[in-house]
Amino acid sequence: MNKNKSFFITIEGGEGSGKTSNSLLLKKYLESKGFKVLLTREPGGTVAAESIRKILLNPKSKLTPLSELFLYEAARAQHIEEIVRPALKSGAVVICDRFTDATVAYQGFARKLDLSLINKLNAAASGKLIPELTIYLDINPKTGLKKAKNLDKESYGVSGDRIEMESFEFHKNVRKGYLAQAKKYPKRIKVVKTDKDINKTWSAIKKEIDAKLKIKNV
Amino acid sequence: MNKNKSFFITIEGGEGSGKTSNSLLLKKYLESKGFKVLLTREPGGTVAAESIRKILLNPKSKLTPLSELFLYEAARAQHIEEIVRPALKSGAVVICDRFTDATVAYQGFARKLDLSLINKLNAAASGKLIPELTIYLDINPKTGLKKAKNLDKESYGVSGDRIEMESFEFHKNVRKGYLAQAKKYPKRIKVVKTDKDINKTWSAIKKEIDAKLKIKNV
Repeated sequence: MNKNKSFFITIEGGEGSGKTSNSLLLKKYLESKGFKVLLTREPGGTVAAESIRKILLNPKSKLTPLSELFLYEAARAQHIEEIVRPALKSGAVVICDRFTDATVAYQGFARKLDLSLINKLNAAASGKLIPELTIYLDINPKTGLKKAKNLDKESYGVSGDRIEMESFEFHKNVRKGYLAQAKKYPKRIKVVKTDKDINKTWSAIKKEIDAKLKIKNV
Repeated sequence: MNKNKSFFITIEGGEGSGKTSNSLLLKKYLESKGFKVLLTREPGGTVAAESIRKILLNPKSKLTPLSELFLYEAARAQHIEEIVRPALKSGAVVICDRFTDATVAYQGFARKLDLSLINKLNAAASGKLIPELTIYLDINPKTGLKKAKNLDKESYGVSGDRIEMESFEFHKNVRKGYLAQAKKYPKRIKVVKTDKDINKTWSAIKKEIDAKLKIKNV
């Protein structure tokens, strides 16, 4: 593949699925292959979107599901226009930690908001931008939540943000939502099982990336 | 009118049109007539919505028009569900300082976002709640902006928030938007010219309120 052709990759997954560490591995890998890479995340990446992120993750916000949905879309609109579009225009590979599929999984399948409303808002906020490749990191919610909470405790001394504190049922529905999306868009969304051994997970991701970006490893 | 029947009134208008002082007069008036009254404002009224309000009014946010639109709708959804609906359910008259017409005027006519998208989002965020009476306080934008900026200087020592700092053209378009809405919904939206003499403005508002709520003054 032409190293200056832009490419939009999203990494999706529930809590503790390993999105952060695998996104970093992916960034380093693509850079080693000569690509210009931007790694970014939703919600966040801009001054306004990071402020929105704080409201979203603060357990004191007591957000209604609908308000939460609009906040994610607000952060998305800002992030797409300020960060993602300019990077793609400059010919970079953009790796985005969570995107529109997350809204379908979390706000649609888990919070039970109307899916057609979510699809409309996703299209409006993203300006109809669709990832060329989505890696969905699939993990058993029980295992994932335990990992995420332990990580939070190590990093921040707290045992979970507003989303992690949701019920087990909630996180099972998130997974259902992601798997339904993967079934609906099999060409775009590749399901990778998160393995205990991070090397195995990364190998499976690398295989999908190599195929899609036509990278030859000799 | 039955004093326990809920009623939803919105007060709209550009910067410096006198929404705040007239809303307060209206609240006191209705209370003196035996109504239970809740005076509230958009964006705000709840912990989450006040945090959103801060992002919206902060000039450092550098919000894109679309992100701004979603933030207003997020604050609205939260405010409606947490404050307005419960108050209406309890049989109160709710006076809301700005509502969906403001989104049409500011984000539609002034920021030039797609009106059909705005109408969809307004309906979703408000759960299709429509005011039974809207008072639009009409003021020449030049006069209004001057008043608003002086008020800010007196109260906060600063000369304008992110919205007030917009161009004169912007505020002229806001007014155009409000007048277009009033023309479209003449039964619901009553246009009251903001007079230099606040007593005159208030008298004109009172007349509309008395007619709509069937209040007899002897």
